This record gives sequence, C-alpha cells and structure tokens, in this order.
Amino acid sequence: MPQTQSYYDLDLPARLLLGPGPSMVHPRVLRAMATPLVGYLDPSYLAVMDETQELLRMVFQTQNPLTLALPGTGSAGMEAALYNFIEEGDPVLICVAGYFGERMVEMAARARADVRRIDAPWGQVISERQVAQALDERPAKLVAIVHGETSTGIAQPLHGIAEVVHRHGALLVVDTVASLGGVSVPVDEIGIDICYTGSQKCLSAPPGLAPITVGPRAEAALAARTTRVQSWYLDLTLQRKYWNAERVYHHTGPASMMFALREALRLVAEEGLTARFERHARVSRLLWEGLEARGLSMLVPPEYRLASLTTVRVPAGADEAGLRGRLLAEYGVDIAGALGALKGRYWRVGLMGHSCRPENVVTLLGALDRVLAG
Amino acid sequence: MPQTQSYYDLDLPARLLLGPGPSMVHPRVLRAMATPLVGYLDPSYLAVMDETQELLRMVFQTQNPLTLALPGTGSAGMEAALYNFIEEGDPVLICVAGYFGERMVEMAARARADVRRIDAPWGQVISERQVAQALDERPAKLVAIVHGETSTGIAQPLHGIAEVVHRHGALLVVDTVASLGGVSVPVDEIGIDICYTGSQKCLSAPPGLAPITVGPRAEAALAARTTRVQSWYLDLTLQRKYWNAERVYHHTGPASMMFALREALRLVAEEGLTARFERHARVSRLLWEGLEARGLSMLVPPEYRLASLTTVRVPAGADEAGLRGRLLAEYGVDIAGALGALKGRYWRVGLMGHSCRPENVVTLLGALDRVLAG
Repeated sequence: MPQTQSYYDLDLPARLLLGPGPSMVHPRVLRAMATPLVGYLDPSYLAVMDETQELLRMVFQTQNPLTLALPGTGSAGMEAALYNFIEEGDPVLICVAGYFGERMVEMAARARADVRRIDAPWGQVISERQVAQALDERPAKLVAIVHGETSTGIAQPLHGIAEVVHRHGALLVVDTVASLGGVSVPVDEIGIDICYTGSQKCLSAPPGLAPITVGPRAEAALAARTTRVQSWYLDLTLQRKYWNAERVYHHTGPASMMFALREALRLVAEEGLTARFERHARVSRLLWEGLEARGLSMLVPPEYRLASLTTVRVPAGADEAGLRGRLLAEYGVDIAGALGALKGRYWRVGLMGHSCRPENVVTLLGALDRVLAG
Repeated sequence: MPQTQSYYDLDLPARLLLGPGPSMVHPRVLRAMATPLVGYLDPSYLAVMDETQELLRMVFQTQNPLTLALPGTGSAGMEAALYNFIEEGDPVLICVAGYFGERMVEMAARARADVRRIDAPWGQVISERQVAQALDERPAKLVAIVHGETSTGIAQPLHGIAEVVHRHGALLVVDTVASLGGVSVPVDEIGIDICYTGSQKCLSAPPGLAPITVGPRAEAALAARTTRVQSWYLDLTLQRKYWNAERVYHHTGPASMMFALREALRLVAEEGLTARFERHARVSRLLWEGLEARGLSMLVPPEYRLASLTTVRVPAGADEAGLRGRLLAEYGVDIAGALGALKGRYWRVGLMGHSCRPENVVTLLGALDRVLAG
C-alpha cells in the first residue's frame, strides 16, 4: 500500500480557462456541487431532475418531452445520438469538417452503419448543396453534422441543411457541444431531430454530463427499432424510464453533477438566452479585434466564426507549445493547441459561458503581448 | 422560456443514506469537489489522475498498470468490462444470482456474445462446482460474476471460482460495485482479470465514476482483438491513452468528480484497508444483532452475508413502501426497497463507506422501532 503521507490536500493552481472546455465554473455552481447528497429516488432528487429537464428545454429552445442529461461527457452524448438511431446496415451520412466530424464517422462505423461522408476543408463549412447532392444520389436514414466544430471554430449554418435533410426523409443529428448556451440553437425552429451538448462548455458546469434532446420524428424512429441499441448504458429508452414518471431504476443518478448542471442552467435562465448570446457575440468581437490589431490572423472567415471558440494562427517562426506553456506557467492563462492537420500552427481560444467576459479577453491579450515580446 | 423565478436555491432535506448507494459523502470530499477547475491537460490535473490511479491500485490491491476511473456510473464499468473483452460470437458464461447478474446477461447479449448462464436462487451464491461443470461442458472466453450482489446482499466467494476459470483458460470479470472498499477484494491474489466498481458505494464519493482494473491476461486479450470495441466511449484502449504517458485526448476529464474520488480514496488510505474492512464487519454485525433482537430475519445466511448491504425481510402484513416512506419523511433515514422477485417483501439496508458507522445503525434501529410500533 502506498504511503498515506504522499497524498496532500488538493492544492491546484488558479487558472483562467480560455481553452475549448472546461470553462470557468461560477462559484454558485461549485457551491451547489458541494451539497450533501440524497438518494437517487428521493423525491427531492426527482424534483431536481424535473427542474433540470425543464431548464434544458429552455436552453435547447425545444418542447421535446425526451430531453435529459446523460451520465457521461459530451462524447457520450455523441455516442447516444448515433447508436440509438442506427441499426446494422442503416445508411447514414456524416458531414466532416473537423475532428469531431471524424469522430462521428468512427462511432457510426462501430455501430455497423453503412457510412458515407461528405467533407469540407477544416475551417470551412458544409454546404446545403453538398448535402442535397449526396442525398439525391442515395438516401440516408440519418444525417449528422457538427454545429460548432471545437477543432476549427466554425459555426455551421443549419437551417437550409435541415430542410434538405427532411425533404429526403432523413433524421438530422446536430452536435452542439461547443455552442449550446453561447450561440442560439433553436432546436424546434430549425427542426433538429437529435441534439446533444456537453455540460462543461457554454453551459459552464463541470464536465461529466451530456444533455440531449430528441424530437418526435426521432422518437418514432426509436420506437420502430427492431434490434436493441448497441449500448445498454446509453440506451435512451432505458434512460427515459428513469427520467419520466415511471422512475424505473437504470443507473445511480450522478447527483452532485446534476446539482451543478441545474445551478448552471439557472444562471443561464437568470441572464436570459438573448442577453447571453449577445454577450458571447460582443466579447468574441473584442477578442477578434484585439488579435487583428496585433497582426494575428484567424482560420475562419468572420461570417462563419464561432463566438465561443476562435482558432488563431501562431505567428510564423514562433514556438506554439512553448508560448502556450508560458501563458499557463507565467500568467495562469489556459488556451489550447490545435488538433489534426492544424496542430502546431494554431491556438484555440475559448470564450465559453462564465469564461466569456471582457476582463478575460484583456488578460489574455496582455499576457500574449508579453510572451510574444520574448 | 420558463419563469426564472420558479427556480430556487437548492434546498435539499438532510438525509441519512442507508440504501444501496449513494452513501454519505465525507465533508472533505464535498469540499474537494468544489475546487475551481483546471484544464483537462493541465499538468496539475494530470497529477491528480496519476495519484487517483495509484490510490485505485491500493484499494483494488493490485499492481495492474491498466487501472483507471471511467467517466460514467458503475453500469458504465460493467459495460466496459464486458464490451472490451467480447467480440461477436465469443462464448461467455455469466453467473446470475440477482439483478446485476441479469444485467450482465443483457449487456453481453447486446455485445453479440454467445451467452450461456448459470443460476443460483436470489440470496444464494454460485458454487465452484457449477462453474466447473459449465466450463467442462463447453469452454468460454470469459466468465463474469458479481462479488457483492446489491439486489440480494450476498458476498460471493471468489478464490475457488477464479482457479476453475483459469484452469479452463477463461478470463474472470468481477463486479465489485457494492463491495470494493468495504470488503476485501485482493484482485491480484485472487487472480481477477477484470474488476470494476462504482464511486458512490463503499468508496463514498458521489456517483458518476467507475474505477476499473485490467490484469495482464486481459490486457493480452484486448491487444489480440481483431474487431473494434462496440463502444467508442468506453473503449479501454482509447481511455488508457489519456491516462498513461501518451496523454492523447479522448474525452474531457470529469475534473470535479475526479477531485472527489481522489479525496475519497485518500480517506481510505488514511484509515487503512484492514481497519476499514474491520469497521464494515463490526458495524454490520451491530445491525444484524439489532435486527435479530427485533425478530426481523435476513435473506442471506450469515456465512455469505455482505457487510455493506443487508436484505431484511419486511414483517408479515406490514406495508413495505409505506414504512420506508415514513422512515424517510419522519426520520430522514433513506433505505431501499428490493428488486425483482424480492420487491415488496424485503428492505435493503446499506452500510457503505462513510455511512457505515455505529451511530447510523442505532438511528436506523430506533426509527424502525417507532414506525413498526404504528
């Protein structure tokens, strides 16, 4: 057995979280998480689940009855969104314009779908025409696309694509892990059939829960399955029976995380969605202007730029990881490197939820000035 | 949008958690969970992961390098333990003596295994002879069994079965969700190949993480797979790359829950495993004596009784749910009803981790006296 003495009180450095998530967590959310627990079928816990569900409908802008928070991170949401609606051999179309589109392809293949993909270069968006062409060639049961690509910082337009997908009788799955709560995603108005997110980005709760909402067409598809969902843990039909009035035991509700998510969503409700989206737009413009003023360029053209995540080109000749390490070590500012083909050439700066404040932008720009000066 | 005003500050009733989990969470663990977050690749977070891993090896009594905490509840641990070691058509043998054995059968079927089962009546244990007979008839790649059945309160003997399983060249998967940290499970000494648990029972962290450890034979089986694991989210090969020195991004580490688990494990280390097991044995005897003194009988004979969970027979003619509801409403004491065939006839009383204290036993017995008196 290890020496007890070797484990100290948790003593973590203070960080300003401006990466792709987790974002800063409001003190009220931290405090809610430290609430003593109750049982997973305690009437008071069931009330917390109901309230969380209602608040999730507010932030998803939906009336969908099947709206809940899965006990896993955002990737569990992705897996649930695909696995529950795919049976072996189902034709699916995945739109890939970054790392998370690639991940969807990988998951759909593991679900034994007949996977086709359409691609856009990283930093660009998928066009309505591409989707229409692919579906004209061959129909699909399901089309999946990422709204806010955390790997590139694009905000994918959805209205036209949703129309095309529905004209072709397919279901639309949308990943809003990096965007929900920071950028408007009106699920019902757009007609998204399955939409999921993570707790730790623009919602500013800690990582560990994956909110998901499922519309009526997708519910019908779920009911029409002839084979069991490949994941028992993420089977929405079983999950739902715990969340709705049946209260059938499935998993032990992750109470502390649910307390945190409820409080984070309550902060969203208090601010109001419109004000929150406006804040994300305004503060991100402040960042973009500051970067441009320093001669730093961004990967994504302004019209498709995601307010909650910006990919900044590292100045020619500069040491990407070295400078990023100095931001963290000297100023406590946490930004991220890039993924895949962008690795080493771009930084990723997140302005998500509680992290998205003007004072954080000026801190980052000031620290960046200092480390770039050598 | 809903009225903001309808969401109040979280104001939960004080509960004494004596059900099948979550158990009471030590204030130090609650406080650790409220620590402001750091990034999921922050050196300070990676150190927390390393320490958690080392502490998990202590509580699993193992040297296994592949030891980590999955980002999901105990059932995610079960799914990972089965899915990572099953390929389509693999013969597996599941030992069923309660609800969680049944769940394993369901999951193994979803993983497309060739599933055989052996059964013992609920409240009894699986015998070495049953396993030997089944494997003599037809070999299996994997044998899965529950150590502490939360549905019945049995403590399944493992040493003899492990020997039989290995003699037949199979892997042994053991569910210790209800027992690890309260009853000794020396993984290396017994020769368990894959062992998992949940954070919220005898470890007394909140629900939401599933510690798992994988031995060398099982690691070799993982490496020998020719098809991809059916769950991307719970793929141990991908999970491991984030936990080991490679630090390859897989999911956003559930930081707050990890802080909680680390602190809970630190409390285990401070108490010492031997003292902790002795405490569970001593306090559960106190409960059993108290129940017997009141003429209440237990489902499981003393030699197979699990210290951390006791199934008590509801007195003839008494209203199971009604009395349980009164314990909660009048005394804040949370115990559970039973599952499956035992439903309505038994209560389940958990004495797990921080819940397992003499003062809690006397509180429960006193409250029980009052509600039974009418």
